[in-house]
Amino acid sequence: MTFSVFVPPQADDGTALPVVWYLSGLTCTHANVTDKGEYRRACAELGLIFVVPDTSPRGEGVPDDPDGAYDFGLGAGFYVDASQAPFDRHYRMYSYLADELPEVVASVFPIDRDRQGITGHSMGGHGALTIALRNPSRFRSCSAFAPMVAPSQVPWGQKALTGYLGANPQGWRAHDAVALIEDGARLPDLLVDQGGADTFLAEQLRPELLADACRAAGIPLTLRMQQGYDHSYYFISTFMADHLAWHAERLRR
Amino acid sequence: MTFSVFVPPQADDGTALPVVWYLSGLTCTHANVTDKGEYRRACAELGLIFVVPDTSPRGEGVPDDPDGAYDFGLGAGFYVDASQAPFDRHYRMYSYLADELPEVVASVFPIDRDRQGITGHSMGGHGALTIALRNPSRFRSCSAFAPMVAPSQVPWGQKALTGYLGANPQGWRAHDAVALIEDGARLPDLLVDQGGADTFLAEQLRPELLADACRAAGIPLTLRMQQGYDHSYYFISTFMADHLAWHAERLRR
Repeated sequence: MTFSVFVPPQADDGTALPVVWYLSGLTCTHANVTDKGEYRRACAELGLIFVVPDTSPRGEGVPDDPDGAYDFGLGAGFYVDASQAPFDRHYRMYSYLADELPEVVASVFPIDRDRQGITGHSMGGHGALTIALRNPSRFRSCSAFAPMVAPSQVPWGQKALTGYLGANPQGWRAHDAVALIEDGARLPDLLVDQGGADTFLAEQLRPELLADACRAAGIPLTLRMQQGYDHSYYFISTFMADHLAWHAERLRR
Repeated sequence: MTFSVFVPPQADDGTALPVVWYLSGLTCTHANVTDKGEYRRACAELGLIFVVPDTSPRGEGVPDDPDGAYDFGLGAGFYVDASQAPFDRHYRMYSYLADELPEVVASVFPIDRDRQGITGHSMGGHGALTIALRNPSRFRSCSAFAPMVAPSQVPWGQKALTGYLGANPQGWRAHDAVALIEDGARLPDLLVDQGGADTFLAEQLRPELLADACRAAGIPLTLRMQQGYDHSYYFISTFMADHLAWHAERLRR
Protein backbone atom coordinates (compact mmCIF):
# COMPACT_ATOMS: atom_id res chain seq x y z
CA MET A 1 0.00 0.00 0.00
CA THR A 2 1.25 3.45 -0.95
CA PHE A 3 0.46 6.61 0.99
CA SER A 4 1.86 10.14 1.08
CA VAL A 5 2.73 12.25 4.11
CA PHE A 6 3.48 15.98 4.33
CA VAL A 7 5.41 16.99 7.45
CA PRO A 8 5.61 20.75 8.10
CA PRO A 9 8.71 22.51 9.38
CA GLN A 10 7.29 22.77 12.91
CA ALA A 11 8.28 19.09 13.29
CA ASP A 12 11.96 19.78 12.60
CA ASP A 13 12.71 19.80 16.33
CA GLY A 14 10.85 16.52 16.90
CA THR A 15 7.65 18.09 18.21
CA ALA A 16 4.59 15.84 17.83
CA LEU A 17 2.04 17.59 15.64
CA PRO A 18 -1.66 17.25 14.91
CA VAL A 19 -2.55 15.19 11.85
CA VAL A 20 -5.27 15.53 9.20
CA TRP A 21 -6.18 12.40 7.24
CA TYR A 22 -7.43 12.97 3.70
CA LEU A 23 -9.47 10.22 2.00
CA SER A 24 -9.76 10.40 -1.78
CA GLY A 25 -12.64 9.69 -4.13
CA LEU A 26 -13.39 7.11 -6.80
CA THR A 27 -10.53 6.29 -9.22
CA CYS A 28 -7.93 8.18 -7.15
CA THR A 29 -4.67 7.02 -5.65
CA HIS A 30 -2.71 8.95 -3.03
CA ALA A 31 -1.28 11.01 -5.90
CA ASN A 32 -4.31 13.09 -6.91
CA VAL A 33 -4.57 15.31 -3.85
CA THR A 34 -0.82 15.12 -3.26
CA ASP A 35 -0.22 16.74 -6.66
CA LYS A 36 -3.29 18.96 -6.96
CA GLY A 37 -4.74 19.56 -3.48
CA GLU A 38 -2.83 22.76 -2.61
CA TYR A 39 -2.56 21.79 1.06
CA ARG A 40 1.16 22.26 1.70
CA ARG A 41 1.25 26.01 2.30
CA ALA A 42 -1.65 25.87 4.76
CA CYS A 43 -0.22 22.82 6.54
CA ALA A 44 3.16 24.54 6.81
CA GLU A 45 1.57 27.67 8.25
CA LEU A 46 -0.73 25.80 10.64
CA GLY A 47 1.68 23.07 11.70
CA LEU A 48 -0.39 20.13 10.44
CA ILE A 49 0.83 16.74 9.24
CA PHE A 50 -1.24 15.64 6.22
CA VAL A 51 -1.61 11.93 5.41
CA VAL A 52 -3.14 10.55 2.21
CA PRO A 53 -3.88 6.83 1.84
CA ASP A 54 -4.85 5.02 -1.34
CA THR A 55 -8.52 4.24 -2.09
CA SER A 56 -8.29 0.45 -2.41
CA PRO A 57 -5.92 -2.47 -2.13
CA ARG A 58 -3.61 -2.85 -5.12
CA GLY A 59 -1.40 -5.46 -6.66
CA GLU A 60 -1.56 -8.78 -8.46
CA GLY A 61 -4.23 -11.09 -7.13
CA VAL A 62 -6.45 -8.25 -5.91
CA PRO A 63 -9.89 -8.75 -7.54
CA ASP A 64 -11.43 -5.90 -9.52
CA ASP A 65 -14.90 -5.11 -10.81
CA PRO A 66 -15.69 -7.90 -13.32
CA ASP A 67 -16.41 -5.29 -16.00
CA GLY A 68 -13.56 -2.99 -14.95
CA ALA A 69 -16.03 -0.29 -13.89
CA TYR A 70 -14.58 2.79 -12.18
CA ASP A 71 -17.01 2.68 -9.25
CA PHE A 72 -16.22 -0.72 -7.76
CA GLY A 73 -13.06 -2.71 -7.05
CA LEU A 74 -9.69 -1.08 -7.70
CA GLY A 75 -9.78 2.62 -6.83
CA ALA A 76 -13.18 2.17 -5.18
CA GLY A 77 -12.71 0.44 -1.84
CA PHE A 78 -15.43 2.53 -0.17
CA TYR A 79 -13.58 2.35 3.18
CA VAL A 80 -15.34 -0.84 4.30
CA ASP A 81 -14.18 -4.34 5.30
CA ALA A 82 -15.74 -6.57 2.65
CA SER A 83 -17.58 -9.71 3.72
CA GLN A 84 -18.35 -11.03 0.21
CA ALA A 85 -16.04 -13.27 -1.81
CA PRO A 86 -13.77 -12.66 -3.62
CA PHE A 87 -13.37 -9.21 -2.05
CA ASP A 88 -13.31 -10.27 1.60
CA ARG A 89 -9.65 -11.25 1.48
CA HIS A 90 -8.10 -7.92 0.34
CA TYR A 91 -10.75 -5.21 0.60
CA ARG A 92 -10.33 -4.27 4.26
CA MET A 93 -9.96 -0.51 3.91
CA TYR A 94 -11.89 0.27 7.10
CA SER A 95 -9.48 -1.75 9.25
CA TYR A 96 -6.56 -0.37 7.28
CA LEU A 97 -7.55 3.18 8.15
CA ALA A 98 -8.87 2.53 11.65
CA ASP A 99 -6.01 0.32 12.86
CA GLU A 100 -3.14 -0.58 10.56
CA LEU A 101 -2.15 2.68 8.89
CA PRO A 102 -2.22 4.85 12.06
CA GLU A 103 0.28 2.42 13.63
CA VAL A 104 2.54 2.57 10.58
CA VAL A 105 2.38 6.36 10.37
CA ALA A 106 2.93 6.85 14.10
CA SER A 107 5.97 4.60 13.99
CA VAL A 108 7.70 6.84 11.43
CA PHE A 109 6.26 10.37 11.70
CA PRO A 110 5.79 12.60 14.77
CA ILE A 111 1.99 12.61 14.92
CA ASP A 112 0.16 13.52 18.11
CA ARG A 113 -2.52 10.83 18.34
CA ASP A 114 -4.60 12.99 20.67
CA ARG A 115 -5.02 15.55 17.89
CA GLN A 116 -6.40 13.93 14.77
CA GLY A 117 -8.79 15.29 12.14
CA ILE A 118 -10.20 13.66 9.03
CA THR A 119 -11.52 14.93 5.71
CA GLY A 120 -12.10 13.61 2.23
CA HIS A 121 -13.73 14.03 -1.14
CA SER A 122 -16.77 12.28 -2.60
CA MET A 123 -16.33 8.56 -1.74
CA GLY A 124 -13.56 9.80 0.56
CA GLY A 125 -15.99 12.25 2.15
CA HIS A 126 -18.18 9.23 2.88
CA GLY A 127 -15.11 7.56 4.37
CA ALA A 128 -14.21 10.57 6.51
CA LEU A 129 -17.74 10.98 7.87
CA THR A 130 -18.29 7.30 8.65
CA ILE A 131 -14.87 6.71 10.18
CA ALA A 132 -15.20 9.85 12.33
CA LEU A 133 -18.74 8.92 13.42
CA ARG A 134 -17.57 5.43 14.39
CA ASN A 135 -14.43 6.62 16.20
CA PRO A 136 -15.43 9.77 18.09
CA SER A 137 -12.65 9.41 20.65
CA ARG A 138 -9.99 9.40 17.92
CA PHE A 139 -11.08 12.38 15.81
CA ARG A 140 -11.52 15.87 17.17
CA SER A 141 -12.47 17.35 13.80
CA CYS A 142 -14.19 16.21 10.62
CA SER A 143 -14.96 17.90 7.31
CA ALA A 144 -15.72 16.84 3.75
CA PHE A 145 -15.70 18.02 0.15
CA ALA A 146 -18.74 16.94 -1.87
CA PRO A 147 -19.25 13.80 0.24
CA MET A 148 -21.48 10.87 -0.59
CA VAL A 149 -23.51 11.21 2.62
CA ALA A 150 -25.94 8.31 2.29
CA PRO A 151 -24.48 5.50 0.16
CA SER A 152 -27.43 3.24 1.02
CA GLN A 153 -29.70 5.60 -0.89
CA VAL A 154 -27.67 6.30 -4.06
CA PRO A 155 -26.54 4.19 -7.04
CA TRP A 156 -22.76 4.34 -6.38
CA GLY A 157 -23.23 3.23 -2.79
CA GLN A 158 -25.88 0.60 -3.45
CA LYS A 159 -23.67 -1.10 -6.02
CA ALA A 160 -20.58 -0.99 -3.82
CA LEU A 161 -22.18 -1.96 -0.52
CA THR A 162 -24.03 -4.86 -2.17
CA GLY A 163 -20.79 -6.08 -3.73
CA TYR A 164 -18.67 -5.73 -0.61
CA LEU A 165 -21.20 -6.35 2.20
CA GLY A 166 -24.06 -8.31 0.63
CA ALA A 167 -27.61 -7.51 -0.40
CA ASN A 168 -29.13 -6.81 3.02
CA PRO A 169 -29.26 -3.01 3.56
CA GLN A 170 -29.27 -3.48 7.32
CA GLY A 171 -25.64 -4.50 6.97
CA TRP A 172 -24.81 -1.19 5.30
CA ARG A 173 -25.86 1.13 8.12
CA ALA A 174 -22.46 1.08 9.84
CA HIS A 175 -20.99 2.48 6.58
CA ASP A 176 -23.55 5.18 5.85
CA ALA A 177 -23.13 8.57 7.55
CA VAL A 178 -26.83 9.44 7.56
CA ALA A 179 -27.76 6.00 8.92
CA LEU A 180 -25.05 6.22 11.59
CA ILE A 181 -26.42 9.56 12.77
CA GLU A 182 -29.97 8.18 12.74
CA ASP A 183 -28.68 5.28 14.84
CA GLY A 184 -27.16 7.60 17.42
CA ALA A 185 -23.59 8.38 16.34
CA ARG A 186 -22.52 11.98 16.92
CA LEU A 187 -19.84 14.50 15.90
CA PRO A 188 -19.13 17.75 17.75
CA ASP A 189 -19.57 19.68 14.49
CA LEU A 190 -18.98 19.33 10.77
CA LEU A 191 -17.92 21.41 7.76
CA VAL A 192 -19.04 20.40 4.25
CA ASP A 193 -18.36 22.24 0.99
CA GLN A 194 -20.37 21.22 -2.06
CA GLY A 195 -20.06 22.56 -5.59
CA GLY A 196 -23.32 23.83 -7.03
CA ALA A 197 -22.35 22.75 -10.55
CA ASP A 198 -21.27 19.26 -9.46
CA THR A 199 -22.84 16.81 -11.91
CA PHE A 200 -23.06 14.14 -9.19
CA LEU A 201 -24.89 16.38 -6.73
CA ALA A 202 -28.52 15.35 -7.19
CA GLU A 203 -28.11 11.64 -7.86
CA GLN A 204 -25.07 10.48 -5.85
CA LEU A 205 -24.15 13.04 -3.17
CA ARG A 206 -27.46 14.45 -1.81
CA PRO A 207 -26.13 16.72 0.96
CA GLU A 208 -29.71 17.59 1.94
CA LEU A 209 -29.98 14.12 3.52
CA LEU A 210 -27.02 14.96 5.76
CA ALA A 211 -28.51 18.35 6.58
CA ASP A 212 -31.78 16.69 7.64
CA ALA A 213 -30.00 14.08 9.76
CA CYS A 214 -27.77 16.67 11.47
CA ARG A 215 -30.73 18.90 12.17
CA ALA A 216 -32.68 16.04 13.75
CA ALA A 217 -29.64 14.97 15.79
CA GLY A 218 -28.55 18.45 16.85
CA ILE A 219 -25.16 18.22 15.12
CA PRO A 220 -23.95 21.70 14.08
CA LEU A 221 -23.36 21.38 10.32
CA THR A 222 -21.81 24.14 8.22
CA LEU A 223 -22.91 23.20 4.70
CA ARG A 224 -21.64 25.64 2.09
CA MET A 225 -23.02 25.45 -1.44
CA GLN A 226 -20.28 26.87 -3.67
CA GLN A 227 -22.00 28.05 -6.81
CA GLY A 228 -20.29 27.31 -10.12
CA TYR A 229 -17.88 24.70 -8.74
CA ASP A 230 -17.80 21.15 -10.08
CA HIS A 231 -16.56 17.86 -8.60
CA SER A 232 -12.90 18.35 -9.57
CA TYR A 233 -9.69 19.13 -7.75
CA TYR A 234 -10.10 22.77 -8.83
CA PHE A 235 -13.01 22.80 -6.38
CA ILE A 236 -11.14 20.91 -3.65
CA SER A 237 -7.97 22.98 -3.87
CA THR A 238 -9.93 26.24 -3.79
CA PHE A 239 -11.39 25.43 -0.37
CA MET A 240 -8.60 23.25 1.04
CA ALA A 241 -7.03 26.04 3.12
CA ASP A 242 -10.43 26.80 4.68
CA HIS A 243 -10.82 23.19 5.74
CA LEU A 244 -7.32 22.98 7.16
CA ALA A 245 -7.92 26.14 9.20
CA TRP A 246 -11.16 24.57 10.50
CA HIS A 247 -9.26 21.47 11.57
CA ALA A 248 -6.33 23.42 13.07
CA GLU A 249 -8.72 25.44 15.23
CA ARG A 250 -10.15 22.21 16.68
CA LEU A 251 -6.77 20.49 17.02
CA ARG A 252 -5.08 23.12 19.16
CA ARG A 253 -3.70 21.85 22.42
CA MET B 1 -3.18 24.25 -30.14
CA THR B 2 -4.51 24.03 -26.60
CA PHE B 3 -3.82 26.60 -23.90
CA SER B 4 -5.31 27.42 -20.49
CA VAL B 5 -6.27 30.82 -19.10
CA PHE B 6 -7.12 31.80 -15.53
CA VAL B 7 -9.11 35.02 -15.24
CA PRO B 8 -9.41 36.43 -11.71
CA PRO B 9 -12.60 37.99 -10.31
CA GLN B 10 -11.25 41.53 -10.78
CA ALA B 11 -12.16 41.10 -14.47
CA ASP B 12 -15.83 40.49 -13.72
CA ASP B 13 -16.66 44.11 -14.49
CA GLY B 14 -14.74 44.03 -17.79
CA THR B 15 -11.59 45.71 -16.47
CA ALA B 16 -8.48 44.94 -18.55
CA LEU B 17 -5.93 43.24 -16.32
CA PRO B 18 -2.20 42.52 -16.43
CA VAL B 19 -1.21 39.11 -17.78
CA VAL B 20 1.55 36.67 -16.84
CA TRP B 21 2.57 34.11 -19.46
CA TYR B 22 3.86 30.80 -18.13
CA LEU B 23 5.99 28.60 -20.41
CA SER B 24 6.36 24.95 -19.44
CA GLY B 25 9.29 22.57 -19.58
CA LEU B 26 10.15 19.42 -21.52
CA THR B 27 7.35 16.83 -21.87
CA CYS B 28 4.68 19.19 -20.50
CA THR B 29 1.44 20.33 -22.01
CA HIS B 30 -0.62 23.27 -20.71
CA ALA B 31 -2.06 20.85 -18.11
CA ASN B 32 0.95 20.38 -15.82
CA VAL B 33 1.09 23.84 -14.29
CA THR B 34 -2.65 24.30 -14.67
CA ASP B 35 -3.22 21.31 -12.39
CA LYS B 36 -0.21 21.54 -10.09
CA GLY B 37 1.17 25.09 -10.22
CA GLU B 38 -0.83 26.59 -7.30
CA TYR B 39 -1.16 29.96 -9.03
CA ARG B 40 -4.89 30.61 -8.78
CA ARG B 41 -5.08 31.97 -5.24
CA ALA B 42 -2.23 34.42 -5.85
CA CYS B 43 -3.62 35.49 -9.23
CA ALA B 44 -7.05 36.03 -7.67
CA GLU B 45 -5.55 38.15 -4.89
CA LEU B 46 -3.25 40.13 -7.19
CA GLY B 47 -5.61 40.54 -10.14
CA LEU B 48 -3.46 38.73 -12.69
CA ILE B 49 -4.56 36.83 -15.77
CA PHE B 50 -2.42 33.67 -16.17
CA VAL B 51 -1.97 32.11 -19.62
CA VAL B 52 -0.34 28.73 -20.25
CA PRO B 53 0.49 27.59 -23.81
CA ASP B 54 1.56 24.12 -24.88
CA THR B 55 5.26 23.31 -25.40
CA SER B 56 5.12 22.18 -29.04
CA PRO B 57 2.83 21.80 -32.01
CA ARG B 58 0.57 18.74 -31.76
CA GLY B 59 -1.52 16.61 -34.04
CA GLU B 60 -1.28 14.17 -36.90
CA GLY B 61 1.41 15.03 -39.40
CA VAL B 62 3.56 16.88 -36.84
CA PRO B 63 7.03 15.27 -36.93
CA ASP B 64 8.55 13.99 -33.69
CA ASP B 65 12.03 12.96 -32.59
CA PRO B 66 12.94 9.95 -34.76
CA ASP B 67 13.64 7.91 -31.62
CA GLY B 68 10.72 9.34 -29.66
CA ALA B 69 13.09 11.00 -27.18
CA TYR B 70 11.54 13.28 -24.55
CA ASP B 71 13.91 16.17 -25.24
CA PHE B 72 13.16 16.90 -28.91
CA GLY B 73 10.04 17.11 -31.06
CA LEU B 74 6.66 16.74 -29.39
CA GLY B 75 6.64 18.37 -25.96
CA ALA B 76 10.02 19.95 -26.69
CA GLY B 77 9.54 22.85 -29.10
CA PHE B 78 12.18 25.00 -27.36
CA TYR B 79 10.27 28.18 -28.27
CA VAL B 80 12.07 28.63 -31.60
CA ASP B 81 11.00 28.84 -35.26
CA ALA B 82 12.64 25.82 -36.85
CA SER B 83 14.52 26.24 -40.11
CA GLN B 84 15.39 22.57 -40.63
CA ALA B 85 13.16 20.05 -42.45
CA PRO B 86 10.92 18.35 -41.50
CA PHE B 87 10.41 20.61 -38.47
CA ASP B 88 10.30 23.94 -40.27
CA ARG B 89 6.67 23.57 -41.28
CA HIS B 90 5.07 23.11 -37.82
CA TYR B 91 7.66 24.00 -35.17
CA ARG B 92 7.12 27.75 -35.01
CA MET B 93 6.70 28.19 -31.29
CA TYR B 94 8.54 31.52 -31.16
CA SER B 95 6.15 33.13 -33.64
CA TYR B 96 3.23 31.42 -31.95
CA LEU B 97 4.13 33.06 -28.63
CA ALA B 98 5.40 36.37 -29.98
CA ASP B 99 2.57 37.03 -32.44
CA GLU B 100 -0.23 34.53 -32.90
CA LEU B 101 -1.27 33.56 -29.38
CA PRO B 102 -1.31 37.11 -27.93
CA GLU B 103 -3.79 38.08 -30.67
CA VAL B 104 -6.00 35.08 -29.93
CA VAL B 105 -5.91 35.69 -26.19
CA ALA B 106 -6.55 39.43 -26.50
CA SER B 107 -9.54 38.77 -28.74
CA VAL B 108 -11.27 36.70 -26.04
CA PHE B 109 -9.90 37.75 -22.63
CA PRO B 110 -9.55 41.24 -21.08
CA ILE B 111 -5.75 41.46 -21.04
CA ASP B 112 -4.00 44.82 -20.78
CA ARG B 113 -1.27 44.56 -23.42
CA ASP B 114 0.71 47.31 -21.75
CA ARG B 115 1.12 45.17 -18.65
CA GLN B 116 2.61 41.80 -19.56
CA GLY B 117 5.01 39.58 -17.65
CA ILE B 118 6.51 36.22 -18.53
CA THR B 119 7.86 33.28 -16.57
CA GLY B 120 8.55 29.60 -17.11
CA HIS B 121 10.23 26.43 -15.95
CA SER B 122 13.35 24.71 -17.30
CA MET B 123 12.97 24.74 -21.12
CA GLY B 124 10.13 27.20 -20.44
CA GLY B 125 12.47 29.33 -18.35
CA HIS B 126 14.72 29.45 -21.41
CA GLY B 127 11.65 30.47 -23.41
CA ALA B 128 10.65 33.19 -20.95
CA LEU B 129 14.13 34.67 -20.77
CA THR B 130 14.75 34.68 -24.52
CA ILE B 131 11.31 35.98 -25.48
CA ALA B 132 11.56 38.75 -22.86
CA LEU B 133 15.08 39.68 -23.95
CA ARG B 134 13.97 39.88 -27.59
CA ASN B 135 10.76 41.83 -26.86
CA PRO B 136 11.65 44.35 -24.16
CA SER B 137 8.82 46.70 -25.11
CA ARG B 138 6.22 43.99 -24.59
CA PHE B 139 7.30 42.59 -21.21
CA ARG B 140 7.66 44.67 -18.07
CA SER B 141 8.62 41.70 -15.91
CA CYS B 142 10.43 38.39 -16.30
CA SER B 143 11.22 35.54 -13.94
CA ALA B 144 12.06 31.85 -14.20
CA PHE B 145 12.08 28.58 -12.28
CA ALA B 146 15.20 26.45 -12.85
CA PRO B 147 15.73 27.85 -16.34
CA MET B 148 18.04 26.48 -19.00
CA VAL B 149 19.98 29.74 -19.32
CA ALA B 150 22.49 28.85 -22.04
CA PRO B 151 21.14 26.15 -24.36
CA SER B 152 24.12 26.60 -26.70
CA GLN B 153 26.38 25.27 -23.94
CA VAL B 154 24.39 22.27 -22.63
CA PRO B 155 23.36 18.88 -24.08
CA TRP B 156 19.58 19.47 -24.14
CA GLY B 157 20.00 22.75 -25.96
CA GLN B 158 22.72 21.63 -28.36
CA LYS B 159 20.60 18.70 -29.53
CA ALA B 160 17.47 20.79 -29.94
CA LEU B 161 19.03 23.86 -31.55
CA THR B 162 20.96 21.67 -34.00
CA GLY B 163 17.79 19.82 -34.93
CA TYR B 164 15.61 22.89 -35.29
CA LEU B 165 18.08 25.56 -36.43
CA GLY B 166 21.01 23.69 -37.98
CA ALA B 167 24.56 22.94 -36.89
CA ASN B 168 25.99 26.49 -36.90
CA PRO B 169 26.04 27.81 -33.29
CA GLN B 170 25.99 31.40 -34.58
CA GLY B 171 22.39 30.76 -35.56
CA TRP B 172 21.53 29.78 -31.98
CA ARG B 173 22.46 33.05 -30.30
CA ALA B 174 19.04 34.62 -30.77
CA HIS B 175 17.59 31.72 -28.74
CA ASP B 176 20.11 31.63 -25.91
CA ALA B 177 19.60 33.98 -22.96
CA VAL B 178 23.26 34.27 -22.05
CA ALA B 179 24.25 34.90 -25.68
CA LEU B 180 21.47 37.48 -26.09
CA ILE B 181 22.74 39.38 -23.03
CA GLU B 182 26.33 39.15 -24.32
CA ASP B 183 25.05 40.56 -27.61
CA GLY B 184 23.45 43.54 -25.92
CA ALA B 185 19.86 42.55 -25.00
CA ARG B 186 18.71 43.86 -21.63
CA LEU B 187 16.00 43.35 -19.00
CA PRO B 188 15.17 45.82 -16.21
CA ASP B 189 15.66 43.06 -13.64
CA LEU B 190 15.15 39.34 -13.21
CA LEU B 191 14.08 36.79 -10.55
CA VAL B 192 15.29 33.19 -10.77
CA ASP B 193 14.64 30.36 -8.29
CA GLN B 194 16.74 27.22 -8.59
CA GLY B 195 16.45 24.03 -6.55
CA GLY B 196 19.70 22.98 -4.95
CA ALA B 197 18.81 19.26 -5.28
CA ASP B 198 17.80 19.57 -8.94
CA THR B 199 19.46 16.69 -10.79
CA PHE B 200 19.71 18.81 -13.97
CA LEU B 201 21.43 21.73 -12.25
CA ALA B 202 25.10 21.15 -13.10
CA GLU B 203 24.77 19.71 -16.60
CA GLN B 204 21.72 21.35 -18.21
CA LEU B 205 20.71 24.49 -16.29
CA ARG B 206 23.92 26.20 -15.14
CA PRO B 207 22.52 29.35 -13.53
CA GLU B 208 26.08 30.57 -12.84
CA LEU B 209 26.38 31.40 -16.55
CA LEU B 210 23.36 33.69 -16.26
CA ALA B 211 24.75 35.25 -13.10
CA ASP B 212 28.03 36.00 -14.89
CA ALA B 213 26.28 37.49 -17.92
CA CYS B 214 23.95 39.64 -15.80
CA ARG B 215 26.86 40.89 -13.71
CA ALA B 216 28.83 41.86 -16.80
CA ALA B 217 25.78 43.56 -18.33
CA GLY B 218 24.59 45.30 -15.18
CA ILE B 219 21.24 43.49 -15.09
CA PRO B 220 19.98 43.17 -11.49
CA LEU B 221 19.47 39.43 -11.03
CA THR B 222 17.91 37.92 -7.91
CA LEU B 223 19.09 34.31 -8.04
CA ARG B 224 17.82 32.23 -5.13
CA MET B 225 19.26 28.77 -4.55
CA GLN B 226 16.53 26.82 -2.73
CA GLN B 227 18.28 24.03 -0.89
CA GLY B 228 16.64 20.63 -0.95
CA TYR B 229 14.27 21.34 -3.83
CA ASP B 230 14.30 19.27 -7.01
CA HIS B 231 13.11 20.00 -10.57
CA SER B 232 9.45 19.08 -9.96
CA TYR B 233 6.19 20.94 -9.64
CA TYR B 234 6.54 20.67 -5.85
CA PHE B 235 9.41 23.14 -6.29
CA ILE B 236 7.53 25.37 -8.73
CA SER B 237 4.31 25.51 -6.73
CA THR B 238 6.20 26.33 -3.53
CA PHE B 239 7.61 29.54 -5.01
CA MET B 240 4.85 30.39 -7.49
CA ALA B 241 3.18 32.98 -5.24
CA ASP B 242 6.53 34.74 -4.76
CA HIS B 243 6.98 35.02 -8.51
CA LEU B 244 3.47 36.28 -9.09
CA ALA B 245 3.95 38.97 -6.42
CA TRP B 246 7.19 39.98 -8.15
CA HIS B 247 5.34 40.33 -11.45
CA ALA B 248 2.35 42.13 -9.91
CA GLU B 249 4.65 44.73 -8.38
CA ARG B 250 6.11 45.49 -11.81
CA LEU B 251 2.78 45.39 -13.63
CA ARG B 252 0.99 48.00 -11.57
CA ARG B 253 -0.45 50.89 -13.53
